[in-house]
Amino acid sequence: MDAHMERIRIEELRNLIVSPEEAASWIKEGMTLGLSGFTRAGDAKAVPLALVKRAENEQFKVNVYTGASLGSDTDRLFAEAGIVKKRVPFQADKTMRKAINEGALLFDDHHLSQTPEWIRSGVIEPIDYAILEAVAITEDGMLIPSTSVGNSLSFAKHAKSIIIEINTAHTAKWEGIHDLYYPAFQGERIPIPLTKTDDRIGSVGIPLDLEKVKGIVLTHQMDSESTITPPDHETEVMAANLIAFLRSEVKAGRLTNRLAPLQSGIGSQANAVLHGLLDSEFEDLEVYSEVLQDAVFDLIDAGKVRFASSASITLSKEKMEKVFNNLDAYRDKLIMRPQEISNYPEIIRRLGLISINTALEFDIYGNVNSTHVTGTKMMNGIGGSGDFARNARLSIFVTKSVGKGGDISSVVPFVSHVDHTEHDVDVLVTEYGYADLRGLAPRQRVGLIIANCAHPMYREQLWAYYYEALERGGHTPHVLEKALSWHVNLQQHGSMLVRSEKQRI
Amino acid sequence: MDAHMERIRIEELRNLIVSPEEAASWIKEGMTLGLSGFTRAGDAKAVPLALVKRAENEQFKVNVYTGASLGSDTDRLFAEAGIVKKRVPFQADKTMRKAINEGALLFDDHHLSQTPEWIRSGVIEPIDYAILEAVAITEDGMLIPSTSVGNSLSFAKHAKSIIIEINTAHTAKWEGIHDLYYPAFQGERIPIPLTKTDDRIGSVGIPLDLEKVKGIVLTHQMDSESTITPPDHETEVMAANLIAFLRSEVKAGRLTNRLAPLQSGIGSQANAVLHGLLDSEFEDLEVYSEVLQDAVFDLIDAGKVRFASSASITLSKEKMEKVFNNLDAYRDKLIMRPQEISNYPEIIRRLGLISINTALEFDIYGNVNSTHVTGTKMMNGIGGSGDFARNARLSIFVTKSVGKGGDISSVVPFVSHVDHTEHDVDVLVTEYGYADLRGLAPRQRVGLIIANCAHPMYREQLWAYYYEALERGGHTPHVLEKALSWHVNLQQHGSMLVRSEKQRI
Repeated sequence: MDAHMERIRIEELRNLIVSPEEAASWIKEGMTLGLSGFTRAGDAKAVPLALVKRAENEQFKVNVYTGASLGSDTDRLFAEAGIVKKRVPFQADKTMRKAINEGALLFDDHHLSQTPEWIRSGVIEPIDYAILEAVAITEDGMLIPSTSVGNSLSFAKHAKSIIIEINTAHTAKWEGIHDLYYPAFQGERIPIPLTKTDDRIGSVGIPLDLEKVKGIVLTHQMDSESTITPPDHETEVMAANLIAFLRSEVKAGRLTNRLAPLQSGIGSQANAVLHGLLDSEFEDLEVYSEVLQDAVFDLIDAGKVRFASSASITLSKEKMEKVFNNLDAYRDKLIMRPQEISNYPEIIRRLGLISINTALEFDIYGNVNSTHVTGTKMMNGIGGSGDFARNARLSIFVTKSVGKGGDISSVVPFVSHVDHTEHDVDVLVTEYGYADLRGLAPRQRVGLIIANCAHPMYREQLWAYYYEALERGGHTPHVLEKALSWHVNLQQHGSMLVRSEKQRI
Repeated sequence: MDAHMERIRIEELRNLIVSPEEAASWIKEGMTLGLSGFTRAGDAKAVPLALVKRAENEQFKVNVYTGASLGSDTDRLFAEAGIVKKRVPFQADKTMRKAINEGALLFDDHHLSQTPEWIRSGVIEPIDYAILEAVAITEDGMLIPSTSVGNSLSFAKHAKSIIIEINTAHTAKWEGIHDLYYPAFQGERIPIPLTKTDDRIGSVGIPLDLEKVKGIVLTHQMDSESTITPPDHETEVMAANLIAFLRSEVKAGRLTNRLAPLQSGIGSQANAVLHGLLDSEFEDLEVYSEVLQDAVFDLIDAGKVRFASSASITLSKEKMEKVFNNLDAYRDKLIMRPQEISNYPEIIRRLGLISINTALEFDIYGNVNSTHVTGTKMMNGIGGSGDFARNARLSIFVTKSVGKGGDISSVVPFVSHVDHTEHDVDVLVTEYGYADLRGLAPRQRVGLIIANCAHPMYREQLWAYYYEALERGGHTPHVLEKALSWHVNLQQHGSMLVRSEKQRI
């Protein structure tokens, strides 16, 4: 029997096999699609591509919901084809980003744990087609996801119809690694019975309503590889600074050498910071995150991480080959969960996560912008950072102190957009040090942030702003007419650095 | 036996009775105090006052933690005496506010559910003395709180020593109304077993470590009455607008006529909005809140609310007399809980609260400022609004569209401080209407907010800003150099309204 047929273990379902083009032809103007895929992993690949091809000869628009970002260049192709009316809840593609910032498509950027609540309660448009990648359909009608779970469970539950992409490029050994749990409606919900990172609380697959399965498409295409860059000198120093902070927590008796379950956001900086734990004294670590990147597997290989839970696995090419071809070596150390569960506030608070996410910029009082370049242009979206930062035991944000060769300071007087308020930010880390803001009044935070986190070339300018603000007083002193002047300078003169009085606004 | 003695039902403890002055004399320079009290209710009254008196002849400073705001003018007296080094986590006093804004005392303004986590895990200064008002100490060593629970349980658990104020002005009938539950450390914590507003999950009082009880003070003083003003025409219209929104949710099938458990913040506007439900079709309502104000009891009396849970009860003089003298009529309809439980994210999300809080201002994209006047001056603090807004089923913010006779618009281009990001704000309500922002991209929100919420006299000015911003593009269009100009105009010219070009910056 052909490899694909073996994966479809309910014989009648094999009659539903169609070409991607045929499946794509069912999708009509104005429909809402729920696609599998989270941080490039486990995304539906063939049907979205066929849909893009259809757009060569036909004008239509659809709403596209996903777990998080897609791989396979799908978001770029969607944006180029102009077929997306609304994109929910996260993307990370340059072309799509441009379309969003031009207002050519609507982007509803919200907390990743929120999408399933809104689908369940009918707040956002109902899903016409769920298009879900799977490694198999079991005898008892379970869809076994591949390298991500994302929102696939919610999509399958609530979509009117389901299209499945059986992808044989993924090993069938993923079966048994997932744990699918679906909360009831708010008001009828019981406590989520998860108290440890390795607790299994659900089923190994997504229970399918077979009546809703309209088509099955056969694919053989590996996930897009991760775009992270290896740690560099600055991110290595950032990691060392983070470790210094964690060490001080151990010394203070608030953590042990096992720390607490770690969450780390997507991207090179977050990966590099986790990577730094390899050479630390911390051991027997656990990860409870929305995505696992290369560093987590390095830590597992080194015996530093004993268990890791996430909604997706996004790896570099080399790491994919190593992990995906040796899944048996990892299967007792991994669980993949719906993003609703990986990002569920109740669990994040209960487990007391140490949450590490990346900031675009933060201000001298500890407010964090993680989405909007100069307050207006969307980068990727808030993703799960808010789910974690708001509920974690320790909410840590990392960033390099400057960008664009020094023309952008990541530490500013007043962030141009707030994704994480001063109330939700515990510790800031750059390559210059860390600032532990817990329990401090705003005026107490300023010195720590400037001295420990800002790049030296911006410190004087930050102090000048603060001293001018202090003369005006207030719990959180500001010179409102200059608060955003750093961003204005960047827009008008290409740099936040005031090199002469002449350049000042 | 004297009324006080009857309330101290362990005989040996009666030997610990001291004067407030003696108890206050134990407090040393640099100590940290944990005082009972939440929104003026159930506050420790005599020892704090004696401490203030001590300051007439002696210089010292202490840290003051509470549940939330104190009554009895304590925060004013503290500020006038200059004896507070750090105040945590909420206050609402004019004199203390002034001291905070002058930098004369440190104010650590954080989510009300956060304080117990930080106390438990040793993040903030440990508590030397817990000073807790009680209506009784039971035979089995339970402290029975009075009109608030606030942080008293955490304070009692973690303080080195405890001073109890037995207040006979409160009826002993409060016993049995409280429900005290204390979560374990993060990482060792089980799910909080509360799935309904009326679930009892703990003990009727605070289990005391009798070794730690150092003194008992006898008092007879009623709580300070609430400072709320009765509903006015504008708040009545706001209530009607909120009801119109809720009705549309029922129509859409997302709510029933029983709605969902309601949370409402402190203050006249929040009270007025709840009051509006009296004449609505909604019935069999439940309240799960941090504070119950007059309106909740009106709703109970009218048979509209079947059950109410909170961390405190703060009433007007008339309402106090009515409720406190007839507690038997309410006791099967009330539970008072620690603020950690009333505000616990897990429970808020599980129950799916409808959360109604007051904004100082919000912007055309839905970011809310609830603490800082013109971005710098602290009003009261974020309180529980973030606990609720971030986790509720519906996060609603209400405010009058203008303040200061029209010189301040509550709808601005860019809020001068962010307490609740666009991601945590579902619905905005003013006396002009409501804007339902769920699922909308930023550009879609603008029109709704201006047309439905802004005062007509500011709409043109808001549109002018937005159109200028639109020309620059971006996911969230802004004219950064003018973004805060409304606040600057207010500071410099006394009004946000641009009456002539000359007044423009």
